[in-house]
Amino acid sequence: MASMQNSAALNYVHANPCFLEKNDGIFDSSRRRVRFSFDHGSKIRKSLRLNANTRTNVETIDGKKVNGSHVGGIPYLDRSNSECDDDDDQEPKNHEYLMGRFVENRFVFRQSFVIRSYEIGPDKTATMETLMNLLQETALNHVASSGVGGNGFGATREMSIRKLIWVVTRILVQVDKYSSWGDLVEIDTWVDAAGKNGMRRDWVIRDFNTQKIITRATSTWAMMNRETRRLSKIPDEVKNEVQPFYLNRASIPPQNNDSEKIEKLTHETAHIMRTGLAPRWSDMDANQHVNNVKYIGWILESVPIKILENYNLTSMILEYRRECRQSNVLESLTSMKPRTCEENNGEIASENCDLECTHLLRMGDDRAEIVRARSVWNFKKP
Amino acid sequence: MASMQNSAALNYVHANPCFLEKNDGIFDSSRRRVRFSFDHGSKIRKSLRLNANTRTNVETIDGKKVNGSHVGGIPYLDRSNSECDDDDDQEPKNHEYLMGRFVENRFVFRQSFVIRSYEIGPDKTATMETLMNLLQETALNHVASSGVGGNGFGATREMSIRKLIWVVTRILVQVDKYSSWGDLVEIDTWVDAAGKNGMRRDWVIRDFNTQKIITRATSTWAMMNRETRRLSKIPDEVKNEVQPFYLNRASIPPQNNDSEKIEKLTHETAHIMRTGLAPRWSDMDANQHVNNVKYIGWILESVPIKILENYNLTSMILEYRRECRQSNVLESLTSMKPRTCEENNGEIASENCDLECTHLLRMGDDRAEIVRARSVWNFKKP
Repeated sequence: MASMQNSAALNYVHANPCFLEKNDGIFDSSRRRVRFSFDHGSKIRKSLRLNANTRTNVETIDGKKVNGSHVGGIPYLDRSNSECDDDDDQEPKNHEYLMGRFVENRFVFRQSFVIRSYEIGPDKTATMETLMNLLQETALNHVASSGVGGNGFGATREMSIRKLIWVVTRILVQVDKYSSWGDLVEIDTWVDAAGKNGMRRDWVIRDFNTQKIITRATSTWAMMNRETRRLSKIPDEVKNEVQPFYLNRASIPPQNNDSEKIEKLTHETAHIMRTGLAPRWSDMDANQHVNNVKYIGWILESVPIKILENYNLTSMILEYRRECRQSNVLESLTSMKPRTCEENNGEIASENCDLECTHLLRMGDDRAEIVRARSVWNFKKP
Repeated sequence: MASMQNSAALNYVHANPCFLEKNDGIFDSSRRRVRFSFDHGSKIRKSLRLNANTRTNVETIDGKKVNGSHVGGIPYLDRSNSECDDDDDQEPKNHEYLMGRFVENRFVFRQSFVIRSYEIGPDKTATMETLMNLLQETALNHVASSGVGGNGFGATREMSIRKLIWVVTRILVQVDKYSSWGDLVEIDTWVDAAGKNGMRRDWVIRDFNTQKIITRATSTWAMMNRETRRLSKIPDEVKNEVQPFYLNRASIPPQNNDSEKIEKLTHETAHIMRTGLAPRWSDMDANQHVNNVKYIGWILESVPIKILENYNLTSMILEYRRECRQSNVLESLTSMKPRTCEENNGEIASENCDLECTHLLRMGDDRAEIVRARSVWNFKKP
């Protein structure tokens, strides 16, 4: 028999002043809000895919597309553009709630979620996997609703024609507060260029009621040929599709972007190693590959249970290096070190230190790297 | 690197005439619909728990409570009850969409969900685990919104006072059609008595657009003391809380209720056995127990991948016999037999037979039974 009980839900709040700057702490030179009545009609869409024909408005200044790019210090379109506007302050319609909607002149895609009972972990708050799942969902719905969506998960039409897919190479998630069952969260996502052949996707998660940002995330994406599995340049046709959505705004300020190299762990440098980790059928996604969110579960398999129980995971960065299939057997390695210590009556309370962990997921047979990761754990104050 | 691609989404439809009877095939002697303007106010609730103070209306006929019970052939309250009515035909407000709402005179709780990208499996349709997760979520929200909710998952106030919890002993899910990413589904759930000391909870899942029932489920619950882990009678105070919600209606007609005994598999009778299955930290729920939905993943671990790939799981019944903790190591056993065969040019196409599997999850050390299960698999027509 399986039980379904619990006690009062808990929230853990970590005050971090550098996350609470002007403009919600989102790094954007100016943020003009314009209003818009974005009528999708009153019927629920059969699916997101039905929205895919809405065309994007691209404004030009001196012949340059400015939808999101900084051109002459004007990051957003002028109010005179009556077709594309902002509905931030209007209550969205039901299907917009469920399926997401564009705000801020179509530069930002916003979707609301209620944290479900099965998305919380043993400490009764949403797990890191849940957050990553919701980020992924918002990103995919962003593309599907953009009018440039192709037939794949997150692929544009021009990408689909060329058998190109996006692959995530790096994701950083910084959690200020984990939500509880029934909490309503609002996720904003947008994209920007990352060098010549990459794309950056950022997110912020707000607690709907307080409107405070409770999680920030940023990710980097490269383009890959679906069949050859080789990395590819971004073709001009694809650039033309995505650039109008680029928004020069960072959810995480550069100084907090955890850009320090992640050390490669070995059998010698790891404190804990778990071997024989086998993907389950249910870990496979629509590509018959392990979904990138599932790696978190294996990473946490080599984190001591005392840390899982007594600390909050406040930051996690993952660098994806290789795909994983169901037949692979994995090893999970973790090393730990204290990060900051609390002064307690003049003594360093070493058992209450925040912790920094380094992780490696690798193949069991040839030790090929799959994911390098780093996590920061904040001691739960009793 | 992890990929995010796919191709066109697929739906599998299994026509099953006995599922498509009058009244949507739900077994209820009469179904009067009454309308109601159920104004919760325009603001999103902070959480479901804020709804918990709404009181239930219980009507009496000849001194008997009739909220759901058949008394004198009147299964529903009279239209003259202006406080409690039905809003089936009105578009619900945003928060009702997200958090669920009562319909049919508060006998039925209804919640809508969009199938998310990470809830679909390798065949691009919602997995059985996803369905079970959504059923669980609807059930818990039903209790939380009922006005009798206590401080636990699914527990009422009088249960919480007595440290009682509901434990599921049996669940049967029959799937007619699996949904795809972005599909909107609507889940109805209600409860009824199951013998003297049990409760039955039923569900139907509808495709929102076609309004066809695509999944039916029924479950049986017993009462357990949270601390002693012993089964308990239902105290009168708890009966008084839940009985007003009892609705004499079955989502699955008795003749389809898969009531045949599930054979106990052994090492000898099983065709496949997987050993060494270890719960992950992320499999634990808010009770530090393995959530009852997670068992499905382990059951499927002993189903051959060819079946997982080439068949649709159309029915699954689980009998829960023991709780499982993270330290347990499990074994998954499966046996298979053909169920029905297609005549193909006069020959029995045995490779295209529908299959029936019997499953057992047991402890690795003392072989104690955790779950017995049976599943039916329908060959995917090419």
